[in-house]
Amino acid sequence: MLSITSPQNPRVKRIVKLSERRARDEARQTVVEGVREIRQALDHGVVPVEAYMCPELIDGAEAERVAQHLRATAATGMSELLLVSPDVFAKMAYRGASGGLLMVIAYRRNRLESLAFGGAPFLLVVEEAEKPGNLGAILRTADAAGVDAVLVPTPPDHQGTDLHNPNVIRASLGAYFTVPTVAATTDETIGWLHEQGITVVAAGPAAETLYTAADLTGPVALAVGSEAWGLSDTWLAAAGVRVRIPMAGAVDSLNLSASAALLMYEVVRQRGSID
Amino acid sequence: MLSITSPQNPRVKRIVKLSERRARDEARQTVVEGVREIRQALDHGVVPVEAYMCPELIDGAEAERVAQHLRATAATGMSELLLVSPDVFAKMAYRGASGGLLMVIAYRRNRLESLAFGGAPFLLVVEEAEKPGNLGAILRTADAAGVDAVLVPTPPDHQGTDLHNPNVIRASLGAYFTVPTVAATTDETIGWLHEQGITVVAAGPAAETLYTAADLTGPVALAVGSEAWGLSDTWLAAAGVRVRIPMAGAVDSLNLSASAALLMYEVVRQRGSID
Repeated sequence: MLSITSPQNPRVKRIVKLSERRARDEARQTVVEGVREIRQALDHGVVPVEAYMCPELIDGAEAERVAQHLRATAATGMSELLLVSPDVFAKMAYRGASGGLLMVIAYRRNRLESLAFGGAPFLLVVEEAEKPGNLGAILRTADAAGVDAVLVPTPPDHQGTDLHNPNVIRASLGAYFTVPTVAATTDETIGWLHEQGITVVAAGPAAETLYTAADLTGPVALAVGSEAWGLSDTWLAAAGVRVRIPMAGAVDSLNLSASAALLMYEVVRQRGSID
Repeated sequence: MLSITSPQNPRVKRIVKLSERRARDEARQTVVEGVREIRQALDHGVVPVEAYMCPELIDGAEAERVAQHLRATAATGMSELLLVSPDVFAKMAYRGASGGLLMVIAYRRNRLESLAFGGAPFLLVVEEAEKPGNLGAILRTADAAGVDAVLVPTPPDHQGTDLHNPNVIRASLGAYFTVPTVAATTDETIGWLHEQGITVVAAGPAAETLYTAADLTGPVALAVGSEAWGLSDTWLAAAGVRVRIPMAGAVDSLNLSASAALLMYEVVRQRGSID
């Protein structure tokens, strides 16, 4: 097995570079760190492009099992496993306590055309999530609510949500690997939703209809915007229904993941889709 | 105005010490940092015990207004304002970009007996929130949902939730200053709820009743437990109703603030209490 002991090794530099979004988007690859996160990825059938292990840092039964899984995958030739020294690992790891395991995976990507629906389509559109932790939490709730896919449309003038940020993966507790996500352009996304006869339900404070009063039992794409500015005019114009979440308090607004949770679970409530 | 230029000044050491929970709990004081957070506190009538300002770091119109407010409060003799050098401020500030303003405030504390209710009591019990950010988000949602108070009971064997952590204040976006919170012991809290005829509605995955099927229009205290372990047996035993949030997905569970948001807004929906 190839072993890396120099922090100057080009592979090490590559991993460090993948901490930047631009490098990730170019390579269409991201980094998964931490025993729990790597286990979740492997449990969901993800095969790493390459994996790095620092034997001196592996600690505990779960870490050992994950390491064994990575060794077995490497043995089949489907992926590469490299050993690194503690110094090298410290340079590669974004987080302090990553447990001596790190892997590079290809972006999980889906196309609008390949989405499949059991019943009436149930989608969530996140136009802009400022914080990776928020998007991760939304994916987690989407998984719990049985959402078919989360769409993160890319506006023309903007690079769009950083869907594959390692902190999204971490905060999602594995939902990054279970909930299909699609990052098409805004135009493609809206065009496709209209073609499919899926109603865009836009959430915003100016709407008249309460989210609990709108009929959400048909094919719907719930759309939420940035916490600071809400949905863009483009998405408001694309919406067939506009709803608002009532708010009593003095504080600006609900946080994005709370709003998204309320909307998703209102669909669940109305459909009685989960018992 | 007193000016501090030495990082060895005992006041500076005291602020640094307040970054530890034990020191905060002993002094019953916490630290508010950042222009936005300080403005929110002042807007809600909070008078600081003492405030620190580094004129060289004050930047922008809002910061200037907040600084002016602090100067005016100090001029009345109600609180103290101290000027500090950039070096000293860097030592005091927990966060990098605090905008040159920091203040010490007394813990906001309420007693169960002093809680007041307009209609049927609507309370939230958070038995354990592992992350300050989660508790802050919960306070924010509680504010939006019109919750009367958030109770954070202290179990006998445990120091309880770190309600006054500066990160709770920050994540709450000001709701720390608007939503009454009570940190009584678990026994006192349960005893008081029962005396008041307030039904404890315990949330957990083992319950049979869906949260949307339970009648939540009467006096209720929604109770949520830690994300990792759920509610303790004590709270489950104290509950008049047990409910669960349905989950479709593969991932462990909803995050604590999402669960709390769903429960609180189900009360809002059933009561039609906010338009």
